[in-house]
Amino acid sequence: MLRYLTAGESHGESMTVILDGMPSGLRVDNGLLKSELKMRQSFYGRGKRMKIEPDIARISSGLRKGVTIGSPISILIRNKDFSIDSLAFITKPRPGHADLAGAMKYGLKDIRSVLERSSARDTVSRVAIGALCKQLLMEFDIDILSHVVIVGGVIADTSDLSFKKIRSNASKSPVNCADGAASKRMIEEIDRARLEKDTLGGVFEIIVKGVPVGLGSYSQSDRRLNARLCGALSSIQAVKAVEVGAGFDYALSRGSEAHDEIFYSRAKGFYRSTNRAGGIEGGMSNGEDIVLRACMKPIPTLMSPLSTVDTKNKKAARATVERSDVCAVGSCGVVGEAAVAIEIANAFLEKFGGDSLQEIKRNHAGYLKQLRKF
Amino acid sequence: MLRYLTAGESHGESMTVILDGMPSGLRVDNGLLKSELKMRQSFYGRGKRMKIEPDIARISSGLRKGVTIGSPISILIRNKDFSIDSLAFITKPRPGHADLAGAMKYGLKDIRSVLERSSARDTVSRVAIGALCKQLLMEFDIDILSHVVIVGGVIADTSDLSFKKIRSNASKSPVNCADGAASKRMIEEIDRARLEKDTLGGVFEIIVKGVPVGLGSYSQSDRRLNARLCGALSSIQAVKAVEVGAGFDYALSRGSEAHDEIFYSRAKGFYRSTNRAGGIEGGMSNGEDIVLRACMKPIPTLMSPLSTVDTKNKKAARATVERSDVCAVGSCGVVGEAAVAIEIANAFLEKFGGDSLQEIKRNHAGYLKQLRKF
Amino acid sequence: MLRYLTAGESHGESMTVILDGMPSGLRVDNGLLKSELKMRQSFYGRGKRMKIEPDIARISSGLRKGVTIGSPISILIRNKDFSIDSLAFITKPRPGHADLAGAMKYGLKDIRSVLERSSARDTVSRVAIGALCKQLLMEFDIDILSHVVIVGGVIADTSDLSFKKIRSNASKSPVNCADGAASKRMIEEIDRARLEKDTLGGVFEIIVKGVPVGLGSYSQSDRRLNARLCGALSSIQAVKAVEVGAGFDYALSRGSEAHDEIFYSRAKGFYRSTNRAGGIEGGMSNGEDIVLRACMKPIPTLMSPLSTVDTKNKKAARATVERSDVCAVGSCGVVGEAAVAIEIANAFLEKFGGDSLQEIKRNHAGYLKQLRKF
Amino acid sequence: MLRYLTAGESHGESMTVILDGMPSGLRVDNGLLKSELKMRQSFYGRGKRMKIEPDIARISSGLRKGVTIGSPISILIRNKDFSIDSLAFITKPRPGHADLAGAMKYGLKDIRSVLERSSARDTVSRVAIGALCKQLLMEFDIDILSHVVIVGGVIADTSDLSFKKIRSNASKSPVNCADGAASKRMIEEIDRARLEKDTLGGVFEIIVKGVPVGLGSYSQSDRRLNARLCGALSSIQAVKAVEVGAGFDYALSRGSEAHDEIFYSRAKGFYRSTNRAGGIEGGMSNGEDIVLRACMKPIPTLMSPLSTVDTKNKKAARATVERSDVCAVGSCGVVGEAAVAIEIANAFLEKFGGDSLQEIKRNHAGYLKQLRKF
Repeated sequence: MLRYLTAGESHGESMTVILDGMPSGLRVDNGLLKSELKMRQSFYGRGKRMKIEPDIARISSGLRKGVTIGSPISILIRNKDFSIDSLAFITKPRPGHADLAGAMKYGLKDIRSVLERSSARDTVSRVAIGALCKQLLMEFDIDILSHVVIVGGVIADTSDLSFKKIRSNASKSPVNCADGAASKRMIEEIDRARLEKDTLGGVFEIIVKGVPVGLGSYSQSDRRLNARLCGALSSIQAVKAVEVGAGFDYALSRGSEAHDEIFYSRAKGFYRSTNRAGGIEGGMSNGEDIVLRACMKPIPTLMSPLSTVDTKNKKAARATVERSDVCAVGSCGVVGEAAVAIEIANAFLEKFGGDSLQEIKRNHAGYLKQLRKF
Repeated sequence: MLRYLTAGESHGESMTVILDGMPSGLRVDNGLLKSELKMRQSFYGRGKRMKIEPDIARISSGLRKGVTIGSPISILIRNKDFSIDSLAFITKPRPGHADLAGAMKYGLKDIRSVLERSSARDTVSRVAIGALCKQLLMEFDIDILSHVVIVGGVIADTSDLSFKKIRSNASKSPVNCADGAASKRMIEEIDRARLEKDTLGGVFEIIVKGVPVGLGSYSQSDRRLNARLCGALSSIQAVKAVEVGAGFDYALSRGSEAHDEIFYSRAKGFYRSTNRAGGIEGGMSNGEDIVLRACMKPIPTLMSPLSTVDTKNKKAARATVERSDVCAVGSCGVVGEAAVAIEIANAFLEKFGGDSLQEIKRNHAGYLKQLRKF
Repeated sequence: MLRYLTAGESHGESMTVILDGMPSGLRVDNGLLKSELKMRQSFYGRGKRMKIEPDIARISSGLRKGVTIGSPISILIRNKDFSIDSLAFITKPRPGHADLAGAMKYGLKDIRSVLERSSARDTVSRVAIGALCKQLLMEFDIDILSHVVIVGGVIADTSDLSFKKIRSNASKSPVNCADGAASKRMIEEIDRARLEKDTLGGVFEIIVKGVPVGLGSYSQSDRRLNARLCGALSSIQAVKAVEVGAGFDYALSRGSEAHDEIFYSRAKGFYRSTNRAGGIEGGMSNGEDIVLRACMKPIPTLMSPLSTVDTKNKKAARATVERSDVCAVGSCGVVGEAAVAIEIANAFLEKFGGDSLQEIKRNHAGYLKQLRKF
Repeated sequence: MLRYLTAGESHGESMTVILDGMPSGLRVDNGLLKSELKMRQSFYGRGKRMKIEPDIARISSGLRKGVTIGSPISILIRNKDFSIDSLAFITKPRPGHADLAGAMKYGLKDIRSVLERSSARDTVSRVAIGALCKQLLMEFDIDILSHVVIVGGVIADTSDLSFKKIRSNASKSPVNCADGAASKRMIEEIDRARLEKDTLGGVFEIIVKGVPVGLGSYSQSDRRLNARLCGALSSIQAVKAVEVGAGFDYALSRGSEAHDEIFYSRAKGFYRSTNRAGGIEGGMSNGEDIVLRACMKPIPTLMSPLSTVDTKNKKAARATVERSDVCAVGSCGVVGEAAVAIEIANAFLEKFGGDSLQEIKRNHAGYLKQLRKF
């Protein structure tokens, strides 16, 4: 079983991660770790790209010569600006953030003590863990991508694109959108919002390829794979909605058209020609691609700040202005990939057990053989 | 901390529930328990109402003279048709259900062994637990309702209605819809679908009133209240999408219009005049109503069955036909209320601790006083 | 992963158990379940044997035709005397029981509400779960026994006896003691204590045979197998001490004599000729028998009651007298076997994963082969 | 709820800790943290004292200006000798350590990869967490000590000493023993063992003062305070036995003499004049001092190494010699204090809830008042 905890404030010394439960024998690809962290920082709409120093994750335990040994893995990601004890006192809570509720809950007069931890800075930790989980999954040909499908009212059409094509198209788009025309219009919307000192939310989609039939379970409600995935995506800062497969569109369709009929061929075994269920039926993976979408709200820190109340004197005020982005949906998608990778890896280890990569591979291969004989 | 497990198959002897962690001193209202179970069974679109015997939940431990004593509570709900060992062998998996993935995962030749547990029959257990949690929350003036907002393409408009008005309107609607005109059209859609041997999905909304500021936390991702609520709603059979507050609509709005500005008055303390966030900011309740929506897919068991494959001989076949409903969105909303009540109660006990109602009331009152002085 | 909850009061309607996580394909042996429950009731020193009606555990879900299907298993064990709501008010807490602390913690004026749940009656639930776990383990040639090693100051000597011999000897002893001479003297001590209206504690030993190398882990402290086993044994009513292998005797030995040197032979692979470690090194099973001992305190309910205080008026009083046993160490050992079986089964499933017996057997066989090649 | 994970290998870069769930408003006393870490290193029988550089724990997140803010706390403790990737390959497993079982479980050819994590070096992390929990508990007048009661066959007599006297006596003893005469003889035994290239185990006792009535619960077996405490102590490297109160001596006593009669006075409320139960009845604290003892086995790394097998060629060999101590019972007691502090703090927060010290103090005071009125 995988377990993890993260720690760290956005202007603290560093972000810290501990991940327990990774099997031994996995060679960690530092290149992948690095590129995932970079992906999180790099889409159009974030702060000025040139100036952003890339995040560097240092694995400080759990490896020998670059290979996992079954020990917990700790990761440190240094913050660029370590000044948490000298930053100014804040008393003007920003609407849309943890500021006011957090200060009241924890009895903190200086709202800085809330926003340092509630900040999306913590997502860097999740991306680092996700990078390790992705590597584990890749050993079993499970592959994950995210791409942006809505920004600023612009809706991408990727219905005819393959997994591979979505990945290659999106990689060329500054906003991680696989529909070229939509990508351009999204950039225009972002530019316009920036000019108007405003921000944009949007929707990203995650696709997981290669998950075998039978992760998750209907036995107990908290073991349902979709519940775990939706819970994980919802736990990302600013995510306010999640859906699996056809999602909210199911409300408009009828049963006769809403499901994925079952077929069989010697070559493929059981299969479907549609995937409205998004790869999950009865709380379990059904062998088709897992498809999830999540909506990120517009970033609430605005250059043209919202009305609030000064908690010191209870008078109307303008919210504190922190440096911020115009649109971070692409980055949020990268965090989403990580969140999904962690849950899939966990369900995978729960099913296949195993303390070493060698053992899990043997168990996995045996199960695939069993499935083929079903 | 509340923990629970449920057990039981739809044609087994009974459904069984154990709930651990309820404080002592709560007088259980059997009338509420009964009415919640009845609500779950009774909306338009379910099987013929006249014939349905009401479910009866018997609390078999955890009470003395009707009052909780801090012991775990067990509940038994007898099934009407106890025939699990004599039912016919099934080899034609229904698309949209756990049938095929479950049989392959657990190595079960008789698909009956899957559908007995994966069935939505298990939701009766959740409703029973939820009824107890609701009673606990009512002691602290926390109140929960659900109402149907979309069925068969018909969208209800309840934007101007108060909590109280939504409840009273919905209670008069056979489909639990608070918009009278929409309610009528929903019924027509259900009738049409029934005639055409089809089924309908839809969307329900849940509103929770009276939650104090500060349940949940941003400290660790799995402690975020929205993540727990979205995970819990997603774990309900047939739910494929969930959203908080403006949800997916956030994708279309801009930051300047997407958040809830903060105000203060002597009488109310800090408050908002809008509630786009659905009562949750930074993973915590912010004192406004908590508003959630979930989409239920159309019931996949059709009187006019879908294509599938006979697992015995791998030949194309028509899916097994089980007795089923045309539309169960109203009932699903009742289950959703229960799922939400359980999570809110858990977050509540985590914050206020306490082994007896008396103790929790004292801790809660002290905190409210602290908030007023903030 | 196995999870369970139990519920029920000693004079309530029934004891209820839910066990989640058992794989499919295990044929439940009702005979074993019955005999384990009988064992728990039947040793010398318990209440008069003739009068005790045997406990009957009914599995009310999770099986089809006697075989597990991956669903949670619920078990009901009816109480003989269902009178919880009519029993007299108690205000004289018994020393050595939960009575006073429980009443104060939960704010319960009637101490009856405490003792109904804190009673050792709940151990019947654990024995029922343990019986299922034992059956699972037996599929992998893992076998568990308990025997009594100290009662009333009489110490059994079983140092030269094999697992098999201990079992057969103990099965002939009315006190479950494998040393015939000691068994006789224990009975005499019990008789004497009964005459003198007193009670006796003692020590039982548990041996688990056939556990493969590598259950548990040193990776994180709560994953150590010994910590889980000691925690589980300590959670049994009246158990006040636990030890693994040489246990407290380690305090008197030196390092040069305290450990188990390692040998190798073609036939056995790696092995030890001693087992001071009790089969656990570094928080993991090492392939030798797991050996645990636990001490049960004398039953605190005495026919000649202890001094206490009436909580109603704060005056000195004699403790309430409940029907009780003179010595229950043999029974406690049976509960201990169950507690150990549950933990071993859980660690086993964590290592080998698997949703069906077929799958776990394949994974287990593959691992044994890997070990032989090490 | 407190949760923590630790990471780090003994020759890795550093040990890392994350602790989630500490309330806001606690001023961290770095002096206490430092002195606890020093205590762990400093007793007679450890490696030569002069040469040991003290461990320094740096809190790298979770504080602002030295005060907790409700965020997770991360702690880094640098290792002196960071050489994990260059250390020699080991193939001679040491009996009494994780070496052989760990290598087989994780499929690791180089046993170095096992002993780096299974090493008692990890206890420094637990001591650091424990220091924070102790500070939290001290805010509520809960105080914890450990002292050594057996080493090398020498048994200390502290039966007539108060908590305060035990602490002051032990602080003057190089082996942390509160009985002056025994302390001297223990030192002699350690010297003798060192000369003979041998090692010694022993027993330490932990006493917790000031725990209010009612932490823990009998409601579910895993909620029993003694089970959690015994599990936590058992999870410390080399601990093989644990007991509460009279512990194994209960096996030799009779019920009439084994329990703690209950008295009442205006000034004290309910109290006992004996404490055989070690402060826990029915799985709950009963208001008396909590008394626990644990046995540490002799350190298995001997300067005169034990027989083993070379895993490379399966030939008989002498175990690897790592630098080691003669006797570490005093240090183990310091780790035990930490393990106990963490569990007590967790049970405390479960009962009193609360996100800030201010809130918990209010809840705690309210409960104490309730108890006085019982």
